[in-house]
Amino acid sequence: MSKKNLNIGLIGYGFMGRTHSNAFLQAGRFFDLPYKPTLKAVCARNPDRVKSFAANWGYESIETDWRAMIERPDIDLIDIASPNDTHAEIAIAAARAGKMVMCEKPLGRNAAEALAMTEAVEAASVPNMVWYNYRRVPGVVLIKQLLDEGKFGRIFHYRAKFLQDWTISQDLPQGGEGLWRLDVAVAGSGVTGDLLAHNIDTAMWLNGPITEVSAVTETFIKERKHNLTGDVQPVGIDDASAFICRFENGSLATFEATRYARGHKALYTLEINGEHASAFWDLHDLHRIQYFDHQDEGRVRGWRNVHITDGDHPYMKHWWVPGLQIGYEHTFTHQFADFLQATGEGRSSAPTFRDGLATDRVTDAVLKSAKSRKWETV
Amino acid sequence: MSKKNLNIGLIGYGFMGRTHSNAFLQAGRFFDLPYKPTLKAVCARNPDRVKSFAANWGYESIETDWRAMIERPDIDLIDIASPNDTHAEIAIAAARAGKMVMCEKPLGRNAAEALAMTEAVEAASVPNMVWYNYRRVPGVVLIKQLLDEGKFGRIFHYRAKFLQDWTISQDLPQGGEGLWRLDVAVAGSGVTGDLLAHNIDTAMWLNGPITEVSAVTETFIKERKHNLTGDVQPVGIDDASAFICRFENGSLATFEATRYARGHKALYTLEINGEHASAFWDLHDLHRIQYFDHQDEGRVRGWRNVHITDGDHPYMKHWWVPGLQIGYEHTFTHQFADFLQATGEGRSSAPTFRDGLATDRVTDAVLKSAKSRKWETV
Amino acid sequence: MSKKNLNIGLIGYGFMGRTHSNAFLQAGRFFDLPYKPTLKAVCARNPDRVKSFAANWGYESIETDWRAMIERPDIDLIDIASPNDTHAEIAIAAARAGKMVMCEKPLGRNAAEALAMTEAVEAASVPNMVWYNYRRVPGVVLIKQLLDEGKFGRIFHYRAKFLQDWTISQDLPQGGEGLWRLDVAVAGSGVTGDLLAHNIDTAMWLNGPITEVSAVTETFIKERKHNLTGDVQPVGIDDASAFICRFENGSLATFEATRYARGHKALYTLEINGEHASAFWDLHDLHRIQYFDHQDEGRVRGWRNVHITDGDHPYMKHWWVPGLQIGYEHTFTHQFADFLQATGEGRSSAPTFRDGLATDRVTDAVLKSAKSRKWETV
Amino acid sequence: MSKKNLNIGLIGYGFMGRTHSNAFLQAGRFFDLPYKPTLKAVCARNPDRVKSFAANWGYESIETDWRAMIERPDIDLIDIASPNDTHAEIAIAAARAGKMVMCEKPLGRNAAEALAMTEAVEAASVPNMVWYNYRRVPGVVLIKQLLDEGKFGRIFHYRAKFLQDWTISQDLPQGGEGLWRLDVAVAGSGVTGDLLAHNIDTAMWLNGPITEVSAVTETFIKERKHNLTGDVQPVGIDDASAFICRFENGSLATFEATRYARGHKALYTLEINGEHASAFWDLHDLHRIQYFDHQDEGRVRGWRNVHITDGDHPYMKHWWVPGLQIGYEHTFTHQFADFLQATGEGRSSAPTFRDGLATDRVTDAVLKSAKSRKWETV
Repeated sequence: MSKKNLNIGLIGYGFMGRTHSNAFLQAGRFFDLPYKPTLKAVCARNPDRVKSFAANWGYESIETDWRAMIERPDIDLIDIASPNDTHAEIAIAAARAGKMVMCEKPLGRNAAEALAMTEAVEAASVPNMVWYNYRRVPGVVLIKQLLDEGKFGRIFHYRAKFLQDWTISQDLPQGGEGLWRLDVAVAGSGVTGDLLAHNIDTAMWLNGPITEVSAVTETFIKERKHNLTGDVQPVGIDDASAFICRFENGSLATFEATRYARGHKALYTLEINGEHASAFWDLHDLHRIQYFDHQDEGRVRGWRNVHITDGDHPYMKHWWVPGLQIGYEHTFTHQFADFLQATGEGRSSAPTFRDGLATDRVTDAVLKSAKSRKWETV
Repeated sequence: MSKKNLNIGLIGYGFMGRTHSNAFLQAGRFFDLPYKPTLKAVCARNPDRVKSFAANWGYESIETDWRAMIERPDIDLIDIASPNDTHAEIAIAAARAGKMVMCEKPLGRNAAEALAMTEAVEAASVPNMVWYNYRRVPGVVLIKQLLDEGKFGRIFHYRAKFLQDWTISQDLPQGGEGLWRLDVAVAGSGVTGDLLAHNIDTAMWLNGPITEVSAVTETFIKERKHNLTGDVQPVGIDDASAFICRFENGSLATFEATRYARGHKALYTLEINGEHASAFWDLHDLHRIQYFDHQDEGRVRGWRNVHITDGDHPYMKHWWVPGLQIGYEHTFTHQFADFLQATGEGRSSAPTFRDGLATDRVTDAVLKSAKSRKWETV
Repeated sequence: MSKKNLNIGLIGYGFMGRTHSNAFLQAGRFFDLPYKPTLKAVCARNPDRVKSFAANWGYESIETDWRAMIERPDIDLIDIASPNDTHAEIAIAAARAGKMVMCEKPLGRNAAEALAMTEAVEAASVPNMVWYNYRRVPGVVLIKQLLDEGKFGRIFHYRAKFLQDWTISQDLPQGGEGLWRLDVAVAGSGVTGDLLAHNIDTAMWLNGPITEVSAVTETFIKERKHNLTGDVQPVGIDDASAFICRFENGSLATFEATRYARGHKALYTLEINGEHASAFWDLHDLHRIQYFDHQDEGRVRGWRNVHITDGDHPYMKHWWVPGLQIGYEHTFTHQFADFLQATGEGRSSAPTFRDGLATDRVTDAVLKSAKSRKWETV
Repeated sequence: MSKKNLNIGLIGYGFMGRTHSNAFLQAGRFFDLPYKPTLKAVCARNPDRVKSFAANWGYESIETDWRAMIERPDIDLIDIASPNDTHAEIAIAAARAGKMVMCEKPLGRNAAEALAMTEAVEAASVPNMVWYNYRRVPGVVLIKQLLDEGKFGRIFHYRAKFLQDWTISQDLPQGGEGLWRLDVAVAGSGVTGDLLAHNIDTAMWLNGPITEVSAVTETFIKERKHNLTGDVQPVGIDDASAFICRFENGSLATFEATRYARGHKALYTLEINGEHASAFWDLHDLHRIQYFDHQDEGRVRGWRNVHITDGDHPYMKHWWVPGLQIGYEHTFTHQFADFLQATGEGRSSAPTFRDGLATDRVTDAVLKSAKSRKWETV
């Protein structure tokens, strides 16, 4: 049972370049996959730094122009881990070149970009996936399973937050490497695209489509020095974004993301309340879920603190033994393993570009509502 | 140092009649007060039940007509613990009769009623107070102290919830004793007035005025049998209510209340995020707060789980020794002790009727926004 | 259904005098009892302070000599809340005078005293009870119910701790009012009798007799100034005490108590592990238990965090509504209500003096083992 | 700065063979190391399975006789991940062959074996290390740093547990692959060597030498079927083991390990109480510590829940960004990175074989005390 080789070309070597590379290397050690991934090339503009990145992670070659990489016949899959403003152009070119395409989230800076990207991969019929990695947290997958099994009954409420505190200082500059998330031209938006997009992707996966939203956004610090030019410039991104909404299934929800919640580093939380059961998960203890089953006997009914480390928990039989937790990067490993498995079977692996487009449509509606001060339909 | 006597006339003997009566009896045992409260009379329509209540709690006499009680010269203070639709009429009459007036929350069924009540007590210059008891949770008071001391710096975010699950069953009837909170004619609204009002009162006390809101409400179960008549009738209350808002100080907030959050019994939670510090409190562990101080050394910075049972915590030197927690009813005891203390010193004790009016104005705006689907100014 | 009157004479007005008095006043408000308790007299040596205590709590009269109080024919029940060195003499005299006797724990300073006391109340056939109040925490009672129903199967392990930190300072004096617990002549022992006794009483109630122990004790601060005389004297009490042991049912256990565990105020914790289930409780969140049921489906098996505030939880239907917690002093109220109920039915109410004696036998064995450095049979 | 190559020969392909192999592969991706590790060979008796293991992890060659592997000149380092009864013979032979030696814990089945192993590596002057991986949990390392900086002052208490529940079923067989930990001839002991050894190693690293112990052990299930032969045989291991002890620094401690604590999968907990500070850590949330600093202002003093994911936390700058947790296997990666770093600098990296010997001396004393029913000096 020899495995097909799959040659990967990675674009971008930042934080996400590292998580993806780790996934490429780890997936095959822990999962039995139909493909053997090869780290064929990594591409970024700075030749010294890309060389050093390639050496560290074992990429066989480097490129400094992404167009050159897409033209290489020895590349099967283009993985986009570069800033948001590059996603659309690269993805569309890669699809047209017949490559499989994986893209870091959010798919586009807005739904228009995402639509063009989606149409490109669908026209080219190439496997495609967006790195909404939190769909591969074992505890979140377990909640999905329980929902699909009907354990919750009718859903009444969903709530999600993504709280950070790393931009509170007025002295933090904006723009440039490591800080492009604060530059609206590059990022497309602030926390709405960076953080809420995660919340929304998971929410719609678990609870179905969002139909309408009423939102508020705020930019607490109005001007920042640019990291490269040194110029003090207006801040274009949203520092905080919150919305109330309705889902197609009739449930209500609140969503909130911010980088100004002192004391929270990356606190993604989600909760879903159904007629018979409720569940809660948060990223700061990603290896646990809280689960409430109303059918438990009354006296001993309570939120069950489930340590997701057993063999019957999603993905966990591939790792260690009960009680031993996994970490953040494993979600990327799971996602890549699922992608290879699905591709080997001729299936697409969610979240596809079309799923990523659906999320961008909601974030667009959120930003629009914050401006219009009205409810906006998705 | 003989104490002045203070004769109390209580109206209503339900859940709140019990918490108030307990406060009247306990306050003097644990606090050194300028008045000695006497449980002079209790009033309710059913003579047998009011007699039994009076015997249990030690009321000296009973009345079955509240107008008769207000006319009694031996009553100094009228305490209103009857359903919401009686608040305005009783309070106004009591004020006109020159009685001190304490009223269970919400003050009115709407801001119009609350305004009339407020004008009545202010015209009569009688001490007055609304039983928003969560302002007297020691941990919440501690958060207020820390805010007043400037420990938080600029405030960015506030969030509050009040989650319950006791009305999920379709079989639960509406209306009548014990269930009047489901009857919109009696209650005025559903969770907006019953639960969100608590969240809003505390929020404005801690974080200042709310200026505008965008809200959504839902009635999940559209018809219920009436408890007394047996008729199936439309449900008029809001089962769930959520809103986003802005405070005058520039901070953003999300609020949510529901009786359809499976697994939560009375989960009032609040969190405030400032530039330098954050704090969290919830009613299910009311004797704790979580506090984050960004000035702690980086390596050992974390949310401090503070067990509010020490002598230097608000109210706690009056109770036991460190480590020994108090419960829910103590908040009423604290509030009544504060009321007597303030009255003895000729001060008013917050929350006054005017404070209760401010909350009713926000709940009115919430209900209005849910209908108009627009942002509404408070 | 008129109630019999029960005249109480309390001896001692310290911390425990307050908790007992509160129980006498509160029990009848929340429980339907066969007796109506009357606070007839309180006794202590200092006439001014006892007068003030009587006024605060509503005692009808005072005494300054406990022998005089025991001789009063209008006293039905003697409640001993004075320091440990007075328990035996008072209890024996009270029993001989035919009074009901309630005694603060530990029963005696040692098992010899406790035995004499037990024989006295049994010879006199008077109702008697020791204030091991933690048996009346609703969550602990629930664990007892579940054990009695066989939910745990064979028991393998028990573990308990009582951690405090209030004596760490070298500057804390010993002896005299408020500090007699540090004076071995008065207290009998240090944490063994003060804290471990609580752990042991609950443990044997839940898990049956302890058969043998191996213990270690330590006095970390060897000399302290005496609070009254000012003399620096050797410290005679044990500051910390830990032991391993076997129960008659074959389970193993560890126990530990200390006043040198920085960060813990009154952290009594207990855990029991059985074949099918486990449970945990701690005093810092006394209104919760953690419960693990191995029969839950594997994927959603976890420790259930049970908020003990529902009507089907022990004692809780007498208090408020679901979600609203009670505090420390309620355990005394429950115990007194149970005592009156049992006495009215001619039953004895555990823990009786004989139960208190059993605990003193274990604490004696612990102290003996710490000296002999051998296993000691209880 | 080209790196020296380091050729590794692994013996054993079970659970620990996987954790070690992962560490060999991951260390260089995340840490800048003086050596480039090469997975040269893996050795085990079953050729098919070892071949498959080699293919999965990328070992260049296989061996089925460990003696053959030790003789290979192209192997620099022997890593022992085979059952306990093979440790001594292999380690001594490897040392004599001049190889670096790493050995899974416990070092020997008893202190006699461990002493011979220690003398062998010291006589050969080869780098050596025991895989007590919990010394490399970032939170545990942080506690060590804080202790070394004097933040805790005088230490009064230490307590540790390791609770599991996987052997409660009577139907679980003993012996053979995957189950050799239940076979006393292979394992040396039960939970004492398997679990308590971890607790003891960390404890002595943090708190110094243990001087004397009093222990109890129990075998709850007395006979089990052998996995290979099918014969029902007496169980020789200790199912549970607990002890009280004194440390050289005067502090007291309790330790407990068991495989019969229903509800706990791998709950290693440790707590240390000092004059000024206390800390707690547990394996089920390994990315957190609880820290109490008595110097915090009284009103807001509490246990700080520290999420160990920041760049100033031990090891964490090598991984992701604040808020994103790592998992269990990372502790092995850290340990291997430290070993290579130390070896490159000519230092030894703790825990060395001599450290492993110290732990085996304590576990020997524990087992001896459980038999002698006396305190035993280490």
